[in-house]
Amino acid sequence: MIPNDTIVALATPSGAGAIAVIRLSGKDAIAIASLVFQSVSGKDITLQKTHTLHLGHIVDGSKVIDQVLLSLFRGTNSYTGENTVEISCHGSTYIQQQIIQLLLRKGCRMAQPGEFTLRSFLNGKMDLSQAEAVADLIASDNEASHQIAMQQMRGGFSNEIAKLREELLNFASLIELELDFAEEDVEFADRTQFHDLLNRIEFVLKRLIDSFAVGNVIKNGIPVAIVGEPNVGKSTLLNALLNEERAIVSDIAGTTRDTIEDELVIDGIGFRFIDTAGIRETQDHVESIGIKKTFEKIELAQVILYLVDGSQFAANGQLDTFINEIGKIQNQYPQKSLIVIVNKKDVISPDTLTQINNRLNKYQEELLTVNRTLSTIFISAKNKEGVDDLKNQLLSFVNTGALRNNETIVTNTRHYDSLLKALEEIQKVQWGLQSGLSADLMAIDIRQALFYFGEITGQVTNDELLGNIFANFCIGK
Amino acid sequence: MIPNDTIVALATPSGAGAIAVIRLSGKDAIAIASLVFQSVSGKDITLQKTHTLHLGHIVDGSKVIDQVLLSLFRGTNSYTGENTVEISCHGSTYIQQQIIQLLLRKGCRMAQPGEFTLRSFLNGKMDLSQAEAVADLIASDNEASHQIAMQQMRGGFSNEIAKLREELLNFASLIELELDFAEEDVEFADRTQFHDLLNRIEFVLKRLIDSFAVGNVIKNGIPVAIVGEPNVGKSTLLNALLNEERAIVSDIAGTTRDTIEDELVIDGIGFRFIDTAGIRETQDHVESIGIKKTFEKIELAQVILYLVDGSQFAANGQLDTFINEIGKIQNQYPQKSLIVIVNKKDVISPDTLTQINNRLNKYQEELLTVNRTLSTIFISAKNKEGVDDLKNQLLSFVNTGALRNNETIVTNTRHYDSLLKALEEIQKVQWGLQSGLSADLMAIDIRQALFYFGEITGQVTNDELLGNIFANFCIGK
Repeated sequence: MIPNDTIVALATPSGAGAIAVIRLSGKDAIAIASLVFQSVSGKDITLQKTHTLHLGHIVDGSKVIDQVLLSLFRGTNSYTGENTVEISCHGSTYIQQQIIQLLLRKGCRMAQPGEFTLRSFLNGKMDLSQAEAVADLIASDNEASHQIAMQQMRGGFSNEIAKLREELLNFASLIELELDFAEEDVEFADRTQFHDLLNRIEFVLKRLIDSFAVGNVIKNGIPVAIVGEPNVGKSTLLNALLNEERAIVSDIAGTTRDTIEDELVIDGIGFRFIDTAGIRETQDHVESIGIKKTFEKIELAQVILYLVDGSQFAANGQLDTFINEIGKIQNQYPQKSLIVIVNKKDVISPDTLTQINNRLNKYQEELLTVNRTLSTIFISAKNKEGVDDLKNQLLSFVNTGALRNNETIVTNTRHYDSLLKALEEIQKVQWGLQSGLSADLMAIDIRQALFYFGEITGQVTNDELLGNIFANFCIGK
Repeated sequence: MIPNDTIVALATPSGAGAIAVIRLSGKDAIAIASLVFQSVSGKDITLQKTHTLHLGHIVDGSKVIDQVLLSLFRGTNSYTGENTVEISCHGSTYIQQQIIQLLLRKGCRMAQPGEFTLRSFLNGKMDLSQAEAVADLIASDNEASHQIAMQQMRGGFSNEIAKLREELLNFASLIELELDFAEEDVEFADRTQFHDLLNRIEFVLKRLIDSFAVGNVIKNGIPVAIVGEPNVGKSTLLNALLNEERAIVSDIAGTTRDTIEDELVIDGIGFRFIDTAGIRETQDHVESIGIKKTFEKIELAQVILYLVDGSQFAANGQLDTFINEIGKIQNQYPQKSLIVIVNKKDVISPDTLTQINNRLNKYQEELLTVNRTLSTIFISAKNKEGVDDLKNQLLSFVNTGALRNNETIVTNTRHYDSLLKALEEIQKVQWGLQSGLSADLMAIDIRQALFYFGEITGQVTNDELLGNIFANFCIGK
C-alpha cells in the first residue's frame, strides 16, 4: 500500500558542513514546502515545473530561518516517484533542526530509515534488489564493492533473474495448461526445451551462488589477522601497509580522513585488519603466540599473517619452535590462508638468513608430501622492503576473475538464501522431469521456485521483509 | 582580481550519509561537468537553462561512477556569481572521492576554504561583512547567534554602516571642495549639520561598540565553571542542566547528537561549561577548592557556580570555612558573576538548613554594607529541584535587551577593531570642528574614518585581510 503522508529527513551526514540537504517526499511535499518558503523573486513554488531550482528564504512567521535553494520534483519524475522537495540550507546543525522542526509542525513526519527508497520501490521506480543496492552503494568504500553495487542498482542482477523467471513462468503456464486438458494427455510444454531451460537455470543459479563467496568478501572486506609475539614489528607492518594509501586519500582534504582506519584497499579489494587496536596494545605485555586472545583473533580472520622477528633467530632450537608454531596454526585452521612473514631482514645476519631459509625450505618440502603449501616472505617493515610482494600475496587469495569479467556477483545474504532455495526447487523439478512426475506435482515445485525468484526482485514480498531490509538504511535515503 | 579557473569541493559534511553534494564554480564549471555527466534523457547540459535539475550518470570513460542529480546555475544567477554546478551523489566517501578526483583530472582544482564565498564577494554578490556572516551562520548553534548571523548576512549591519559612510562621504566631498576655493573662504559644508552628523555617527559607533560585549558572548557562548569539592554533585548538576535539552534534540534522529556535548542553551543563549571532563575526573581524588587547577578553570570563566553539599554542614566552624571560601573567590575575581549553590537540599536536616540560611543571610547583609551582592540558591541536583531557578539566574547575567529589540549587534572582533578606530577618527574630527581646525586637516581625519568604515564592508581591502577571513571558513563554502 502506498502511503499518502509526507515524510522529511536530513539527507546529508549529520554535523556541520558548508551546506546540508533536507528532503521531503509525499503527496503534499510541495504544498507544505510552500508554507515555509518565500522565493526571492516572489514565485509561487506550487506553480513551478519539475526539476527546477529556486532561491529563497525559509520563514517561520516573521522569523527568517535561512536563505536556501529549493529543488522541486513532481510526481513520477522524482527519486521516490512522488512529489519531492529538497532544501539546500546552510550547514549549521541548529538551522537543520529548526527547518526540520518547522516542517514537522506544518504536517510532515520524520522519515524512517530508508523510507524514501522504500517509497521508490512501492511506487515501482526500482525493484527490491535495486533498492538494496542503494544501501550497498552508500556503504561502498572501495572499487570492487562500488562496482558490484552500481551494477546491481542499474539492474544487472535483477535483469538476469527476471529473464530466467519469465522463461520459467512461460513453461509453468504451459504445464498448468496441460492440467486443464489432463484427460487428453497433451504436452504443450516441450519437454526437451524445458529440460534445457532447467539446466540453464541451474547453471546460472550455481554460478550466482558460487559468486557469493567472492561477493561476500568484497562487500565486507577480507578479514586479516596479524599475529606474532611483541616487538616483532606488527604495528610497523600495519603502518607500512596502510600509510601509502592514507597519503593518497588525504590529498582530497575533508573527504575521508577517518574512514579507512584499518582497512587496506589493494587493487580495489578491501582487507580489514581485525582488532588492530588490540595489536598495538599488546606491544606492552608479553604474550606468546599460543595464548587465547590471539587464537580468538585468528578465528575471525580469513587470512593470517604470522609475523616473526628474523633477527632473533640464532640457534636451531628456536627455529624448531618457530616451525612448530606454524604447524600448530596450519593444523588448527586448515581452511584459512596463512602467510609466514620474516621481518627485520635488513638486520638479519647472512648466516641466520641462510639458516631460516633452509629450515623453511625443508618444512615446505615436507608439506608438499602431504599436498600442502605454505607462503613465506622476507620483509623489512621499517624500510618498506617486501611490502609490495606481501600485497600481491594477499591479493592472490581472492578470486577476482568474476569481478574482472564484469559478471553478476551476489553480495547479499538474503539473495544468497533465496538463490539456494530456488536451486533446491529447480533440482526437484529436474528430478521430477527425469522420473516422469505428473504435471500437477511438478507445477507446485515450479511455482515454489518462481516464488524464490520473486523474493529477490520484490515481486513477492511482505511487510516484515521490507521492514528488515529498510531498517538497515540510513535515515534520509 | 576575479580568478578564471574552476574550483571543486565537497560541500556537505565528510563521512557517509544518504547523499553528498559536490560543488563546482568557475567559467568552465558547466563545460567540465558536461565531460563527465550523461543525462538519462540525452540532454546536453551546456545548452540547459539556469536553475534546472538533471538526472544522469557520472561516467569516467566507460565506467559508471554514480547516478546523480545535477543542479545547474548560470553566471550571475549563482551563489558565487559564476557558472556553478552542484552534483548530488550517493553519500559514499568512495564515490565522493572518485567524482572529485575525476573532476580534478578534467581541469578543476580543489577549492580553498571559503573560496566559493570569496568569489561571491569578489563578484559583488555580497559585501565583506555579509561574507563573514556566512561562516557565522554555519557555526551558529543557538537561536541568538543564529539570529545575529542571519541579520548580518541579510545586510543589517552593512546597511547601517554604509548609510553613515555615505553621509560622511558627502560631507567629505563638500569639505574637500572648499579646499579648491580656499582663497575665497566659502563653506559648502554646513558646519551645524556636520556637527549633528558627527554626533549621530559617534552615537551609532558607540552603540555598536558596546553591543560587542553582548555579541561576543552570544557568538562564543558564556563560559561557566562549576567548582566545588569532590562528591558535592558537580556531574549530577551538569547532567541535570544538560539532560532535558539533550532529550529534545535527540528527537530528531541523526541531526545533532554529538554537538552540544557540554553546551547548554537557555532561551537561545549558549552557556559553555569549561573543562567539564576534568570535573568528572576530579571525582576520584580529593582536592580542596583552593588548589591551582580549580582557579585556572575560574580564570577562563565568566560565571562561577560554586557548589557545596549542604548535608555535610553540621557545625558552625564548617560554615565559617564555607563563607571564608566564598569571600576568597569574590575577592580574587570581583568581575566574575558568582552563584553559590547549596546542593542536596532534599537530605539537609531542617536545623542545618536554618543554620546555613542564617549564615548566608548574615554574610549577604555584610556584603550590602560594601555595596556588593551574592546570588545563592538551594537545589537538589539529583531530584532536579531548583534547576530552573538556576537557569534563570544564569540568564540574568546576560544583557539580552539589544537582542530582543532586534538591534544590530557586533560579534566580529575585526569589525569591533575597525569601529573603535573609526570612532577615534570621528572624535578627532569632532575636536577639529570645535577648535576650528582648517578644512584640509579635517579632511585627512574624515578620509581615515571612511577608510575604517570601508574595511568593515570590504570597499577597502587587501589580499592578506581576505586571506585571514576566508581561511576560517570550511572547505566547500
